[in-house]
Amino acid sequence: MTSAESRVLARIEARRDASLAEIRDAIRQPSVSRTGEGLAAMADKVQAALQQLGARAWQSPGAVAPIVEGTLTTTAHLPTLLVYDLYDVQPAAGQPGWSVPPFEAALVTDPAGRSRLVGRGAFNSKGPLFGLLGALRAFAEAGAALPCNLRFLIEGEEEIGSPGLAPHIMRHREELTACDAAFIPYFGTDAAGATILRLGFKGLVLLEFRAAGGDWGGPARGDVHALHGAQVDSPAWRLVHALASLTDASGRLAIDGLDALVPPPEADDLALIEAVASRHDLDAYARGIGVARLKPLGDSAAHLRELMFTCTLNIDALQAGRIEEGDAAATFIPRTARALADLRVVPGVAPEAAVALIRDHLAHRGFPEVEVLVRSAYPASRARSTDAVVRALVAACAAEAPDLRVFPIHAGAAPMHVFPDLLGIPYAFGGVGHGGLAHAPDEYILVDDITAFMRSMARFLFRFGEFAVCSPT
Amino acid sequence: MTSAESRVLARIEARRDASLAEIRDAIRQPSVSRTGEGLAAMADKVQAALQQLGARAWQSPGAVAPIVEGTLTTTAHLPTLLVYDLYDVQPAAGQPGWSVPPFEAALVTDPAGRSRLVGRGAFNSKGPLFGLLGALRAFAEAGAALPCNLRFLIEGEEEIGSPGLAPHIMRHREELTACDAAFIPYFGTDAAGATILRLGFKGLVLLEFRAAGGDWGGPARGDVHALHGAQVDSPAWRLVHALASLTDASGRLAIDGLDALVPPPEADDLALIEAVASRHDLDAYARGIGVARLKPLGDSAAHLRELMFTCTLNIDALQAGRIEEGDAAATFIPRTARALADLRVVPGVAPEAAVALIRDHLAHRGFPEVEVLVRSAYPASRARSTDAVVRALVAACAAEAPDLRVFPIHAGAAPMHVFPDLLGIPYAFGGVGHGGLAHAPDEYILVDDITAFMRSMARFLFRFGEFAVCSPT
Repeated sequence: MTSAESRVLARIEARRDASLAEIRDAIRQPSVSRTGEGLAAMADKVQAALQQLGARAWQSPGAVAPIVEGTLTTTAHLPTLLVYDLYDVQPAAGQPGWSVPPFEAALVTDPAGRSRLVGRGAFNSKGPLFGLLGALRAFAEAGAALPCNLRFLIEGEEEIGSPGLAPHIMRHREELTACDAAFIPYFGTDAAGATILRLGFKGLVLLEFRAAGGDWGGPARGDVHALHGAQVDSPAWRLVHALASLTDASGRLAIDGLDALVPPPEADDLALIEAVASRHDLDAYARGIGVARLKPLGDSAAHLRELMFTCTLNIDALQAGRIEEGDAAATFIPRTARALADLRVVPGVAPEAAVALIRDHLAHRGFPEVEVLVRSAYPASRARSTDAVVRALVAACAAEAPDLRVFPIHAGAAPMHVFPDLLGIPYAFGGVGHGGLAHAPDEYILVDDITAFMRSMARFLFRFGEFAVCSPT
Repeated sequence: MTSAESRVLARIEARRDASLAEIRDAIRQPSVSRTGEGLAAMADKVQAALQQLGARAWQSPGAVAPIVEGTLTTTAHLPTLLVYDLYDVQPAAGQPGWSVPPFEAALVTDPAGRSRLVGRGAFNSKGPLFGLLGALRAFAEAGAALPCNLRFLIEGEEEIGSPGLAPHIMRHREELTACDAAFIPYFGTDAAGATILRLGFKGLVLLEFRAAGGDWGGPARGDVHALHGAQVDSPAWRLVHALASLTDASGRLAIDGLDALVPPPEADDLALIEAVASRHDLDAYARGIGVARLKPLGDSAAHLRELMFTCTLNIDALQAGRIEEGDAAATFIPRTARALADLRVVPGVAPEAAVALIRDHLAHRGFPEVEVLVRSAYPASRARSTDAVVRALVAACAAEAPDLRVFPIHAGAAPMHVFPDLLGIPYAFGGVGHGGLAHAPDEYILVDDITAFMRSMARFLFRFGEFAVCSPT
């Protein structure tokens, strides 16, 4: 470790109270992209924080909220890291279950006796964002030069689907492509103390399956009395049979042609899974997510393979007819029936290709009248464990986390494809420290983990400066 | 025709305006069993109408509304007809689509230039009830003796499922069993001018199919994030597959063991269908119920056989997850999914037996976690074309209707099983005259059909007096 690194780490310890105060201050400024509340004030706050670091900072228009940008250049020949994050949060007003006001940034002792910083945005994502900015302040406070150049891209509309992000990146593509890698800070330690790094994200397609009576049959004008059921097609029955044809009885996808599209896990991926499988406690995992019994898929490695390397189609909602007071429904053949679903695609399966397969499947299986509407879609993306930015994050977290696990991909989805697909640069996502209950009441991070997180950030910047120079990406 | 019958029919013609006024007066008294509005006043009105006929009339307690009863005895040795009807109506307040106030009993000219009496209850069932009572007045006004004795049972809670009817019948079983047959008056002429008599009704079972996460798997506490779909059972997918196993892709029931339970149509039934099939215009039928294309079941006879002699399971409503503003749904595995359904059973298939088959089917097909909840159930029932009450109604309608069609059974359901099952007596249901839009806005009967209806009622009473005496049932 260089003496600069030692000084920064020591400074992070010393500014523990200041760092906590900076995060609490950020939480106390509501910034709800769904309603617009506080977005402009929060953008100003982020911009001011960048300027305090000595960065050149400015705001660009997003779709509904300013995008805060900045550059912090140390030395031209150093690699440049594109820091992506968000300053907006999910709504909390009217959300039942908060034990403290969501924008007060209260400190609450949890059942294990640990202090939690509770507030909307604590975990997703003001804790990580202002924790990283605090780590950058520690460099200046310690008189240490930054080991890489930084480019900031902090949007304020992630929680409504980032409508302005891809257009903005495309408009500034030339400049942003000059960055060597992108990075998204995250409190990646789970409740049991394992720190998990994921090298990518699945893609997400929000779909609606809709059957409505019309020229093909079924009620063409309005609902038809159920007594006619023997002679009149039911959109609800058609939808049920169409959906049932898409999965087997266990819910595993059975779309004609899909298996041929899904790439098998690579040897590297299987090795990563093997390395973590013995520590992946299926019972604890099931308990943690509120499930008494997982599907019987085999051992931990089999579960992780299924979780990471299969596409899934989840039914988010079913709706047909009207359920009235007393749980009664009029005995009609409903004119329309629909299912809202989310399709999660693995890297290599383009959303458009998967949707085309679904449409072909339904047409060939005899359900031409079941429409497939695409509400939104983005593809999967992933980095390689050999990418400098990934190697830097792995090394940094390994130094701070007693139990580090590297997963090939997140089963969750995020539109991080913009970095490889639009800019051609790899990305990394993570950090040490525990938080939880994103989008839920009593969202939190552990107070004691803030400095660990900041140390993992400082180490990451040092490693990135070293690795990205040594091995051109 | 006897001179008494001629005098009664002439009197019905002469009292056309009075009969219309009596029905309008009944419609103007709201009697909404769902809310209780006007039930007591309407019961008094019905009781007074019976007393005006010279009947002994009284009120008995129902579950929420009085049951109006009466006896009108002519000669002890004559057969006795049990007249069943209802004085309550569906709600109309707040129901959009009324072109006139629902309780004003307005006269409206329809597109074909015919005068309609429009109002809540006009067709279902104050027109038939007060039309029948008007026909009985015509007997007295014409100085003609009634050709049979009458027993009245007029309930005020049919539209909420007749909760008090079967208990009341069971309490008075001994007295009511002395009746020779039951009769339910109805405006049985359709929009195209065909008068249809049905010799029975299907039975109806209201079901809920429910899958909820629990010890078997799926979300046990609350919703689980959709990213876990590869490993976590989905109640919605289980429900979809369970439902799909119950029918073929066209929606026809495929419950294990059901076919063996369903009796084939008898030769008599097939003969009745053959007699009407050439007049059963499938295109007009489809247009009439608002369907562009019926299921491809074959010719008219095949359609009628399928409609009348198969059990059906209709999905009234599907519900899982929450569909929010903008047609979005959170990407969760919903903890519960449910379908409300109505099962319509043919005579010979007991509701309990059909439900047991469904439960066995689901258990054997691998869906033990899908619950089948029975909300309500009553069996099918039917009379024979050889029953005196049926022969009397057929003869009476044949004399008034240019196009009379006798169907073995109604594809619709009604709990008329109480007469054969609880009292051991046959029943008949029908009459000549057109009405429509029961439960819907602008419910109506044709003004000019009121006297035809009343004539069919008078003729029916004469024929019942003759047939029931000549052929003991």
